[in-house]
Amino acid sequence: MTADTLPEALRAAAGEIEDALDALLPMPEGPEARLFAAMRHACLGGGKRMRGFLVVEGAAQFGVSKTSALRVAAAIEMLHAYSLVHDDLPAMDNDDLRRGKPTVHRAFDEATAILAGDALQAQAFAVLAAEDTHSDPAVRAELCLRLALAAGPRGMCGGQMLDMLAEEQAEVGAPPLGEAAIGRLQLLKTGKLIEFSAEAGAILGKAPAQQRQALCFYGRELGAAFQIADDILDATASAEETGKATGKDAAAGKATLVGLLGLDRARVQAERLAAQARAHLDSFGPRADLLRMLADYTIARRS
Amino acid sequence: MTADTLPEALRAAAGEIEDALDALLPMPEGPEARLFAAMRHACLGGGKRMRGFLVVEGAAQFGVSKTSALRVAAAIEMLHAYSLVHDDLPAMDNDDLRRGKPTVHRAFDEATAILAGDALQAQAFAVLAAEDTHSDPAVRAELCLRLALAAGPRGMCGGQMLDMLAEEQAEVGAPPLGEAAIGRLQLLKTGKLIEFSAEAGAILGKAPAQQRQALCFYGRELGAAFQIADDILDATASAEETGKATGKDAAAGKATLVGLLGLDRARVQAERLAAQARAHLDSFGPRADLLRMLADYTIARRS
Repeated sequence: MTADTLPEALRAAAGEIEDALDALLPMPEGPEARLFAAMRHACLGGGKRMRGFLVVEGAAQFGVSKTSALRVAAAIEMLHAYSLVHDDLPAMDNDDLRRGKPTVHRAFDEATAILAGDALQAQAFAVLAAEDTHSDPAVRAELCLRLALAAGPRGMCGGQMLDMLAEEQAEVGAPPLGEAAIGRLQLLKTGKLIEFSAEAGAILGKAPAQQRQALCFYGRELGAAFQIADDILDATASAEETGKATGKDAAAGKATLVGLLGLDRARVQAERLAAQARAHLDSFGPRADLLRMLADYTIARRS
Repeated sequence: MTADTLPEALRAAAGEIEDALDALLPMPEGPEARLFAAMRHACLGGGKRMRGFLVVEGAAQFGVSKTSALRVAAAIEMLHAYSLVHDDLPAMDNDDLRRGKPTVHRAFDEATAILAGDALQAQAFAVLAAEDTHSDPAVRAELCLRLALAAGPRGMCGGQMLDMLAEEQAEVGAPPLGEAAIGRLQLLKTGKLIEFSAEAGAILGKAPAQQRQALCFYGRELGAAFQIADDILDATASAEETGKATGKDAAAGKATLVGLLGLDRARVQAERLAAQARAHLDSFGPRADLLRMLADYTIARRS
């Protein structure tokens, strides 16, 4: 293992996930090509694919086939991409750039962006539920259930709602959210999907409950660390480094731990979470080293 | 059987489906209540529940438990409701009224309407994938797959895209869509979900392939008849009768069979489709009489 081991593994997995997404979203003939073009614009050509990497590495702990793992990784990346497309809409964050490219509603139009997001969510479930993903229907049903819970009103959509309400409250001068409320907001908005990404390999591998739970807890702490690191980057990095607009959280009055605790205490908190994430992997062997390294990388990255 | 048999059965099923939706979307404590309130606004308090009725009556052919049938009916109604919320958005059809009530983005705001639609789609899959829906995971996985395909880019979202493109084409004076292209647009936009609604009871009941296919074909013809009937209503009924704005299709240059064929030929076509739908039920006994009556009712209704 060298300092390049994790970055190289991340790059390799991102390439494989990109190929899987490309194959799962073929361009059709005819006028509906526009919808697929918008879905592909949203999904392809970049991103760290951290969620997909978690699936692939989680699945590797249990000898799951690469085909199964990559399909689930692609489905989760589709779900994540849809959430970004809708978050970027004028009625939401009104963003023009994403990963250095025009957002979907800028590259196409608003109606197409709404539809492309909707279609990506449906497509994610279509991939999980299809026989190609796993021969055991109980595994497919469980994957669909977990994704639906992570994405729904008690997951991602609920967190997004809390985020919007916190911004509205800040605008009228209400006191900012406390640490517990911010933690809950982040757990719903991004944490639940990261948690599921880490757990999905164990579901595919029909792992014992204890190991499945360990990966789930790892994902939860990792997701929380990742979010703080993201907020720190927003406050400190340049747009050039991250490929998206930065300094936006403070400008928008977003409720973040960085805003509440300050940079130094937020860094300490992120480090503690990353250490906790690693600790949940104690029962795993060296095959989990990339997941351990990911916990450190998550808080050290500059983009 | 009297003339009231079907309307009474529809009302009874609608009441049960409403209760199921109410139970599946409980209002939580805390700030995310706003999201659930918007989801409930979109789902509860009306609609004919034709899709849900198809599930309930399809399931009754195979002795499926009412609990299972109502959960699937509720999931499909959630999916349908989400599609209406997003269709009504300013960037799409920009509608202020739906079933005589303000649309979700008017009653709440645009961002909340986008999120409520997104959350309803996720919730629909969460309901289908949950153990309470059916003890056999193969049934749950199949339901998730079929709903995802009916809702995705080769189903509802694809049809919506074709509809938008047809409107854009009409605006620049391009020749209108022909009969085949309109038929395909409608099959994707509304037909696939109605088809799945009719087929879902057979999936729940693990029916023989032939009977499942008969219900699927019934649903396809019924859906096509329903769409023409809807377009005829838009062209001829008052907003008071239908509870929504009418005469909008012609004003928006929407591609409909009524616009292409004229009212009389469109009526003949709807009657032929309804008769074909009934014919697919020939192998079913008197327990399918309500489904037969629904085919006639679909083209005779005034709202």
